[in-house]
Order: sequence, then structure tokens, then C-alpha cells
Amino acid sequence: MNMVKSMVEQKLEKLARLVRYFILASSTRAGSGHPTSSLSSADLMVALMFGGAFRFDAASPEHPNNDRLIFSKGHASPLFYALWAAAGCITERELLTMRRFGSRLEGHPTVVLPYVEAATGSLGQGLSIGVGMALNAKYLDKLPYRTFVLLGDSEMAEGSQWEAIQLAREYKLDNLVGILDVNRLGQRGETMYGHDLSAYERRIAAFGWKTILVDGHSFPQILDAFEKVLNVSGQPVMIIARTIKGKGVSFIEDRNGWHGKVLNKDEFERALVELGSVDRSMTGEISKPENVMPEAALPKEVANISYPAGKPVATRRAYGNALDRIYPRFPEIVALDGEVSNSTYADIFGKRYPERFFEMYIAEQNMAGAALGLSRRGKIPCVSTFAAFFTRAFDQIRMCQYSGANIKFIGSHAGVSVGEDGPSQMGLEDLAMFRTLLGGVVLYPSDAVSTEKIVEEAIKHRGIVYIRTTRQDTPVIYTSSESFVIGGSKIVRYTDNDVITVVAAGVTLFEALDAHEELKKEGIAVRVIDLYSVKPLDVATLKQAAGSTKAIITVEDHFAEGGIGDAVRGAIGHLPVPVYSLAVRLMPKSGKPRELLDYEGISKDGITKKVKELL
Amino acid sequence: MNMVKSMVEQKLEKLARLVRYFILASSTRAGSGHPTSSLSSADLMVALMFGGAFRFDAASPEHPNNDRLIFSKGHASPLFYALWAAAGCITERELLTMRRFGSRLEGHPTVVLPYVEAATGSLGQGLSIGVGMALNAKYLDKLPYRTFVLLGDSEMAEGSQWEAIQLAREYKLDNLVGILDVNRLGQRGETMYGHDLSAYERRIAAFGWKTILVDGHSFPQILDAFEKVLNVSGQPVMIIARTIKGKGVSFIEDRNGWHGKVLNKDEFERALVELGSVDRSMTGEISKPENVMPEAALPKEVANISYPAGKPVATRRAYGNALDRIYPRFPEIVALDGEVSNSTYADIFGKRYPERFFEMYIAEQNMAGAALGLSRRGKIPCVSTFAAFFTRAFDQIRMCQYSGANIKFIGSHAGVSVGEDGPSQMGLEDLAMFRTLLGGVVLYPSDAVSTEKIVEEAIKHRGIVYIRTTRQDTPVIYTSSESFVIGGSKIVRYTDNDVITVVAAGVTLFEALDAHEELKKEGIAVRVIDLYSVKPLDVATLKQAAGSTKAIITVEDHFAEGGIGDAVRGAIGHLPVPVYSLAVRLMPKSGKPRELLDYEGISKDGITKKVKELL
Repeated sequence: MNMVKSMVEQKLEKLARLVRYFILASSTRAGSGHPTSSLSSADLMVALMFGGAFRFDAASPEHPNNDRLIFSKGHASPLFYALWAAAGCITERELLTMRRFGSRLEGHPTVVLPYVEAATGSLGQGLSIGVGMALNAKYLDKLPYRTFVLLGDSEMAEGSQWEAIQLAREYKLDNLVGILDVNRLGQRGETMYGHDLSAYERRIAAFGWKTILVDGHSFPQILDAFEKVLNVSGQPVMIIARTIKGKGVSFIEDRNGWHGKVLNKDEFERALVELGSVDRSMTGEISKPENVMPEAALPKEVANISYPAGKPVATRRAYGNALDRIYPRFPEIVALDGEVSNSTYADIFGKRYPERFFEMYIAEQNMAGAALGLSRRGKIPCVSTFAAFFTRAFDQIRMCQYSGANIKFIGSHAGVSVGEDGPSQMGLEDLAMFRTLLGGVVLYPSDAVSTEKIVEEAIKHRGIVYIRTTRQDTPVIYTSSESFVIGGSKIVRYTDNDVITVVAAGVTLFEALDAHEELKKEGIAVRVIDLYSVKPLDVATLKQAAGSTKAIITVEDHFAEGGIGDAVRGAIGHLPVPVYSLAVRLMPKSGKPRELLDYEGISKDGITKKVKELL
Repeated sequence: MNMVKSMVEQKLEKLARLVRYFILASSTRAGSGHPTSSLSSADLMVALMFGGAFRFDAASPEHPNNDRLIFSKGHASPLFYALWAAAGCITERELLTMRRFGSRLEGHPTVVLPYVEAATGSLGQGLSIGVGMALNAKYLDKLPYRTFVLLGDSEMAEGSQWEAIQLAREYKLDNLVGILDVNRLGQRGETMYGHDLSAYERRIAAFGWKTILVDGHSFPQILDAFEKVLNVSGQPVMIIARTIKGKGVSFIEDRNGWHGKVLNKDEFERALVELGSVDRSMTGEISKPENVMPEAALPKEVANISYPAGKPVATRRAYGNALDRIYPRFPEIVALDGEVSNSTYADIFGKRYPERFFEMYIAEQNMAGAALGLSRRGKIPCVSTFAAFFTRAFDQIRMCQYSGANIKFIGSHAGVSVGEDGPSQMGLEDLAMFRTLLGGVVLYPSDAVSTEKIVEEAIKHRGIVYIRTTRQDTPVIYTSSESFVIGGSKIVRYTDNDVITVVAAGVTLFEALDAHEELKKEGIAVRVIDLYSVKPLDVATLKQAAGSTKAIITVEDHFAEGGIGDAVRGAIGHLPVPVYSLAVRLMPKSGKPRELLDYEGISKDGITKKVKELL
């Protein structure tokens, strides 16, 4: 070992002192936060950012070839902000606004701050996001940037981590670097493996990653590790670092009970004495990336939709057709699927454009996280699986809304109309789940034409869109000249004498149409609205129906809560017209789609009965 | 190798032929299902059930000391039913009703059939359920039964599997046996590792499990493996079996494109020829378990609630107090927490009753799955983490409703009132999520007294209950003599002249009370309802308010969709009174709870403003 410290190490030590000062100052000022979890990672991150490995043009955070740094342990936000302060990108004044209302420096990182690649704070998500960014670099943008993810040891208990680990190896992401901060202590005590680094190493190496063990407070070791990272090929790397929680402040080092706790003013003063002299005027320098850009594909004209009227086509198949058809116009499209692409029909696109299709296997959490990473790098990920299985990734989907994500989720096999496979395969809560998303869009087409149009609208829209598709075939009822807009609806049956309005979407639209015919024979005029945009709603059309018919009946192949019934009442609940909801209220089971729709009272018969009851 | 087959092996071969016949007959008759995935596991399962290792009293499926068998690969249901048919517990006639409406033999197993330990079909959940059952055997009931879980190779991609694997090792579950059917083929092609058994072995062994590799179609090898299982101590065991998808029917063996596909009649006839003679009259014998019973703890009297009026106590703390207080009356209670027990206050119970408390680490999916396993063994699991993080386990929670689960989920840190930690930590979609559950109960107490009462009601109620608690302190407003029932509410402010009704719960109740006071000064009488039971709702009280005041305003610290607003409109949406909802509609951020409540318009000021707007 070299007894004379290199200039680099000396500089890093000074920067680390500055960063520790920032961590303590900002968290003590905020009165809450996670300084101890920040201190354990401080040397690792200082060495990464200012030791030469990390390449980032701070003047241009969105540069496509910047290296990417994700704090999967988002609670180490004081460190994250301190690093960017040390780099001269955040003033000390702003640093002291941390956690205050209106500050860009939130309790956990959000994309309000341009250096944040994605919002974190729900643990076990950062590595998946990193997978998405690394996939982008290696297979799409074909740029030499690296993605670094800081991981906590506690969060390694999340299964999503292992999903990301396995997929990163499968795609040979040698541009992805995990830095695992093993500080031994979780929120309420020791982690499963404490300071046993070999426990992590065995597991991660078994999944085919290169592992490097270091003392997370030794700059020579850390620098050496980052050096090695540059030469790894064909596999991702995990740097596994032994660290001390609270490192640098003796009276909180390695102590239980100090998670998410800040120093009070006295303790802060004592800590400063321990830290020694801090040069608050110094600035850490980050290496610049090569100024290379991805090849930009130009949008091309695409073919028109053509389905013969009445042709039975499942909307899930129309989704696959749509993606395949419109991709040339939207070359940012990428498709991800959870090992069911022959059911969601993402494989229609995947076969034609294999370089834009990623098989994500049966690991929905990582699929959603990777989609976020791709989205943050300018792609438009179209993510498909059974509607029911998106529940698996609800936490990741929820977090997407805090990252300004531009992702399209497509859930097939919605509702009891799935049939014989039974309840485990039926998406019956997907509308409720996706409706909660702030500013999210929820679309539910009924036929092939509307599906194609809706997929195109979804792609054009910047934000999170959910599209619900159906397993069985439904007849084409719309012509290609019809337009479908987000926030729209279609009045598919109308007379001036309508007594009741039936609001349906997807499979139930056909039930409503059948009910309409039957009632018509009995002289009862019923308006039928295709509510293909479940969020936002076409409030104007609903209000008009509320004003001109004596009741509204919603019909949906979804549980009674959180779906179309709730949505419609949310829009017109302040109006005096009564709204009734037909939905899935009995325990779903196996059976023929028709039997199940009847059983739940959401078929033609259920609608007819309800209409008559109200007359 | 012994060239003369033992009697046992000969018997097993005959039974395997019978089971294969049943698989093909039932799936061909049904016209859908997964025969090939059943055939790959057939020999493994026949050897397990009829080779002596599995001990089960078929006359008493609920016997506490029966071994447990869970098909995590639930799509192998034709095999599951075939096994019980071979055991004489299901007639061939019933077998042929598989997948029909009303049959106990659903497309994927559900608990309608008494031999099904838990509903499966959403992959990657069975092992967690098994963990719960094994925890029960080893630490609670202290019975020698074993839990066997049949796993598919595709589903090993689910992170939840690794959560279960890690926890099983942490708790040294040597009574848990996984049987991994490596048939190489997933739904749409080859799995990540194909027939590379060592890939699975390395990973699983790295997590500290004992692994045994076998040819999954060799009875001597399989029997030998089960023999070894009996002698393992201190660690769980995974039998990793090389199998052939479609085994036994040459023209579908190891072929891609045969997932979830059944033989047509002609193919079925050809397959029968290949199978050879099948003895449909034979019955497989399952070994009987020891007739031992768990020690039953008798319910005891417990102390009464006592909180001084006005005392500030967080409802999350009252949850911990309640569990600690009432446990002697409900000795089936078990608490599980996701490494945040010092925040959810599950640790109050955990410290007093460490033998009834399971640290589940940051792995919410496995926590929910294990809770289901415990519930199915007669315990009342109380599962706690931050409300936001239950989204992580939505798929597992969703599946619980198909297993007749009796589980209490307690989510703390609800809403923007979490404050400085920011949106990643805020539960803003939990009400929507839990409201979707069929027959589920959603409770949201406001003060310590109502929390204690509500926890007790939740424990008494058989089914899935969600309780939402709050981070910050709220003053005690109720006396111990008040009662809180599922489906009830409290009218906390009332006059005969009320012009508007404000419906609130949890933190917003206090905002509503403050608004009431302020408006009262201005001569405006506002009714205030504490809607502590969000599902089911107190429809009578809401109707009465709808009839006697000119508008209803709901106020909730939750996103606008799927929560209290939607719930109330769902109950009285057919009445002419207008319902307005105040909810979280702006991007949440860090800040003081008060600032955030104001920002979202769900504080006293927001309510006051809305009331005046409506007058």
C-alpha cells in the first residue's frame, strides 16, 4: 500500500469532508431526513463523481451520453444533493431548503431537480430503472454511457432487485454498475446478513454478475474498483462495499436507532469539530462525456387502418397490429412484454422489429422499472402483460407518476370475460389501479378500429397511459374515418326519445348494443355511450345524457369499485340524475365468457333487467 | 442401478399412467387448460403423493398435521385434480367437469376444492404461501408437518420467489420443500436458463438452501430425493428436476407452441395408444400423518382502553397498543412487519410477544403471501408496513380474496400528511386498492380510541380487512364507551339546521371539525360525519344526510379516484343530492403536513371555502 497519498485521494478526502458537512448541515436544518444512511455512502459517491469514473456534463444534464446515476436508496438524498452542491450545481443556500415546501430538494429525490434521473424512495426500484437506461445505451441509442446505481443493503431483500439482477445478466449489461452500500443497519435493526459481504457476493455472483468487494471508506480500494469496472465485458458489475452507517461522526457510527434521525444543533456542532476543517469554497470536478449523439430515426408515413365491418378481431390483437403498423411514424417506440407476448400480441411487433422488443420474462416489477428508465432516456415504452399482472408492479407504476414518465401500459385479458382460466387471470382491478395515477390516462377500446386509433393517441400523448384489451374477439363496429381522442366518448345509439343512458366500454359495449336492440323491440329507447376514455372522461357528453335521460346505467367487466361506475359518478355526482352501476360483484369463477357475464349481471340480460326496473 | 424395479416403482408407474390419462381426458374434454405443464410434473407429484413422503388424511383435509401441497404453478391444475382423482377423492365424472361453470375444478385451483391450500395461478406466489405454512408448523403450532411447493421454472423469474427463498433460509425452514419442475419451456418459448439445472442450483444454493438435482421422470431418483428431504436440518430444500414438457405424449414432448394448449379428440386417441393400458380402477394410497394437534391457547380477559380526552396519539401507535392489549383475547393473532415496525408500531406487540412476531424484512410480496399461508392454517395475521408499500403486494393481496383469507393489513403513513418525506412515502392509492377486494373491509380511524376499537372489530371479523393509520399525532376525541362497528359511521357534529354535510375520516376529520367551528361562528351549520368504515359504508346515515342537507362534501387525504369520494357516490349516487369531493389532486411534494393539506385543498380552509361556494 502506498503510504503517500496521491493528489487525487487528498482531493477526494477534502471533497468528502465538504460533502459530509453538507449532509449534516442540510439535514439538521431540515429537522428530518437520513444523514447516517448518507454518510455511509459518502466516500463511495465522492470517489465515483469526482474520481474520474463518472462522466457527466453538468451544464447539460439531459445530454444523451451523460453517465447516469440513480440513488436506489433514495433516502440518502442529503448525500445526493450534497454531491451536486460539491460539484457547484446547487448552492449552499438552496441546500438548506431541503425538505421545505417548494424546494427542489425533496425528502426523497424527485425529477423536479434536473440531476435526478428518476424519483426514488420506495426501495428496490433503482436497479430496474438502471436496467432500462443500460438497455437503452447498449441496444437502442448505442452510446458508451454507463449507468451507476447506488443500492442499500436493506433493500436487497426486495424481490425486484433480483428481477433486475437476473435481467441485467440476461442482456449482458456490462454498462450497468451497482454499488452496494453494506452499512449493516436497516431501519429497525440489523439486516439479514449484517456485515457479511460474502453473503451478498455469493448471491449476486451466482446470478452471473462480476462482483468486487471493497472497504467503502478506502479511496484507493474504491478507485481501484471503478478502474476495474471500465474493463468488464459481457456482464454487469456489483461493487459490494463494507461501510459504516453514520461514518465520520463517531457518536452515531454503526449505532442502531439512528436511522432517519438527524443531529440536533449541539450534536451538529460536535460533529463539525470531528470533521475538521472544511473548505466550503472548493468545487469537485466531474469528467465530461464524449459528445456523441444517438442516431435519430426519422418518422415515416404509415399505412391506414383497414378492418372489414363486422369482422371479429380481439382488441389485444389489434394492439399488436397497431404497434406494428405505426412504429415507423413513432420511432421512439419500444415494446416490453412479460413472457406472454403471444397472448398480448406484442409479438406481432416483436417479430417484425426484434431490435425494439425486449422479452422481460415473468418479472413485472422490473419490467415497469426498466420501462421508466427507457422513458427517461426518451423512448416510448409500450409495456404489455395480462391486466391482472400489472397489480404486481403497482408500486413501480405509482412511482412512475413522480418521474414524469412517458409509458404506455397495455393490459390484456380484462374481466370475467377471460372465461375458463378463472379469477387468477382476470384483470378486475386494473381500472381502479390506473385511475389513481395523477394525470394518468385510462383507455378501453371495444373493437379493432378503436384500438388502433387509441394506441396511436396513446403514443402521441406524453404521459402514463393505460390501455385495457380483451381476450376474445369482438366485431368491428367503427369505420376508419372515426376519430377517438383522449377524453372523448362515442354516442353509438341515440334518439330524441331516449329514456335511459347506458354507459359501457370494451366487452360490455356489445352487451349494451344487444340490450338496446331488445328494448327497442319493446318500444324502449335507450342511449348507448361507448366510454372508451375512462380517464379523462367526456364530461360534456355525460352531462348531456344526464340532462336528457332519466337515469344513467354504467356497465363494466371490472369490480364495482374504482372503475367506470366510480368514474362516471365522479364526473356527474353533483347532478340530480341517478347513476346505477352494473359491475362484477359476485365471486368470479371459471366458465364460458357468456355464462360469466350473465352470472355477474353485466350482460345484455342484466342491462335489460335494470333498464326495466327503472322505468 | 437396480434393474429389477421395486414394487413401489411399479405401482408409481401405473399411477403415473392413470394420472396422465386423467390429465389428458379432463383437458381435452374442457377444451382448454395446460396439459403439457401438467405432464412434466406428473412423475414428481405421483412420487410425492403416493411414494410415502407426503402424509395427508384425505378424509380430513383440514387436519392440522396434514402435510401441505401447494401448486405454485397453478396452471398445472389438471395434474392437481388428477392426483386427487387417483387418490380416490375426486370421481372421474367430476374430473370431466373441469373448467365448467360451477365446477369445483376451476381453470386454476381455488379453495372451492378442499384439497387446495390456497388459490394460485398468478405465478411466483406459492412459495411465499408455503413459507407461511412452514413458519406456522415450526414456530406456532409446533407440528411435524411438511409443506411441499411445486414450482415452475418460468416463474422463478418473479422476484417474489427470491423473497420467499431468502426468508425461508432466514427462519431455517427445514420443513419446507420446493420441487422445481425445470421443463425448459415457458409460455412463449424457452426460459432464461433452459435445461441448465446448474443455473438454478447455483442461485438457490447461494441463498443457503439445500439443493438436490434429479431426473424428474426417474422414480428411483425422485424417491431418493424425498428420502433425503426427511433428513435435512436447519435449511429448506429445493429438489431441482429436469423434466420434459408434455412428457408421455411423444408428439408434444419438449415442443414449443404447446403451452396452454390441449389435444383435440384425434390427438387424444393417439396419446392414449402411446400411454398404454391404464387401470382406471386403481387408487393411490397416501400415507397418514401422525394424529397430533397444536396446543390451543385459551382466550383471556384483557384490559380496557384508556386514553385521556384530547391526548395527542398517532393512530399508528394506537394500532401497536391495541394489538399488544387484545392479543390474550385473540390468541390466533400473529404480527408480520416489513422492517418498519418502529414506524408502524407493530414493535409494541413484537417486543412483548416476540414468538408471535415475524420480521419479514423489506419484501412485501412475500410478507403478504406468507400471511395467506398463516391465515390458511388458522392464524390471524396482522400485516403492517407503510400504506404506500402495500402497492408492492397488490397481486398477492388480490389473490388472497380467492383463498378465503382472514388477514388484517395495516398501512401507516397515509396521505400527504406524511409531510417532509415526500410522495414516495405517501399512501395515496391504498383505499382504492383495498376497496376493490370483493367482500373486503376498509377502516380508517381518526383517533386512538377509535383505532383500538377498530382493530378489535377487524380481528373479530373473518376476512380481509385493511386499516389505514396516520403518521402524526391526532387528539383523542372519543370516549372508551363509544362503539365502532364495521359498516358504521359517527355523526360527530349535528344540528337540525345543518345545510351541508362534510364526510371525512382520519386526519381530515380534524380539518372538518375545525371548519365546522369556523363556519359556526359565521352562523353556518355544517354536519360532520366520521366515515371510519370506508367499506362497507353506513349507507343509512349517508342517505339521511343526503335527505336533510343540500350537499355532501367528502374530504380525504388520498388521490381523487377510488377513495372516500368514490365510495360515498357509490352509495348515494342514485339520490338527487350533489356530492363534491375534496381530495389530493395536485402533485404531492415535501413540506409540512399543514402546508400540504392546505396545498391540496383538503384542510379546514379548503372545506370552508367549498361550503361557502355551495351556499
